[in-house]
Amino acid sequence: MVKTRDRILEATAELLRRKGYHGTGLKQIVKASEAPFGSIYHHFPGGKEELGAEAIRVAGRTYNALIQAFFENASDAAEATNAFFDGAGVVLEMTDYEDACPIATVALEVASVSEPMRAASGEVFESWIDDVTRDFETLGMPPERCRDVAIELLMLIEGAFLLCRSWKSIEPMKIAGSRAVDTVRAALIPS
Amino acid sequence: MVKTRDRILEATAELLRRKGYHGTGLKQIVKASEAPFGSIYHHFPGGKEELGAEAIRVAGRTYNALIQAFFENASDAAEATNAFFDGAGVVLEMTDYEDACPIATVALEVASVSEPMRAASGEVFESWIDDVTRDFETLGMPPERCRDVAIELLMLIEGAFLLCRSWKSIEPMKIAGSRAVDTVRAALIPS
Repeated sequence: MVKTRDRILEATAELLRRKGYHGTGLKQIVKASEAPFGSIYHHFPGGKEELGAEAIRVAGRTYNALIQAFFENASDAAEATNAFFDGAGVVLEMTDYEDACPIATVALEVASVSEPMRAASGEVFESWIDDVTRDFETLGMPPERCRDVAIELLMLIEGAFLLCRSWKSIEPMKIAGSRAVDTVRAALIPS
Repeated sequence: MVKTRDRILEATAELLRRKGYHGTGLKQIVKASEAPFGSIYHHFPGGKEELGAEAIRVAGRTYNALIQAFFENASDAAEATNAFFDGAGVVLEMTDYEDACPIATVALEVASVSEPMRAASGEVFESWIDDVTRDFETLGMPPERCRDVAIELLMLIEGAFLLCRSWKSIEPMKIAGSRAVDTVRAALIPS
């Protein structure tokens, strides 16, 4: 049986992804996690802000596993990049443009209002970048290029998520994917 | 004297930028705009959702004027792009990473929960893209490349805003600006 603390975190992570921080109330978290109200403060004495920061980390680990499913055991960095952007587009279309980055909405909401939650978002993005940087090194990209390329890819996909969702169109993801693949290909060529 | 309706819209646009949609209450709007409570429903019978959609359009027009200040009378598309990304980085640093895109937070919050506000966000992004596309055409970029390049630039800067704010670092904006300038330069070369 899943422990109460984990149920609360999973439910909060899902609510943050769908409704954002300000759109998620403690009552909704209690209901979604089927946890007694008091258990939230028992497990998270810092309240909604502490719970939110920890839920961002949980969501970040889950999404990192998804990213790594594309890059960790890839044989070609450009092919992996292409598959990742294609996959993100397919998921957007399948979910009527709802399933995108699990923490972007919250990260923007909290960036200037909650230091613990901003720090948690920053850690999550950093962990994604660190792992893809290492993947690119393994796949033969010159080490001095790997981090910048990983950051460029993350900016492109986050920008694409925003535009695709606002337009209900896959056009931006196709442009982002094409640019990302070109960047990775160019970085793989020894200069 | 500024009309009540305009005061309400300006105050709402500013609150949406700083606190997002769910973080902005009607009471805050009333206070910030110094308008009688009843006047909100008088001017916006559809309530917070109608007001929010219109405030997104107002914020979008203001930011478009800022974008156009860089691109409309530029003599070189790559130089204008460089100045725009540099300027965005300077503003981030000057405002402790608070002043970024005025509608991105709201756009992500509402994308799957409010069709009128999603549509308003989509219109705003489209208007920015349309104008920069036209600017690039004027500046000699092959017409078939202009829209894709404009969309790539918007994705890069939105992604950079997200990472810069979460990391309190200007590093992503520098990478985004460098990539944006390279893309614009490459697009300007006749193939």
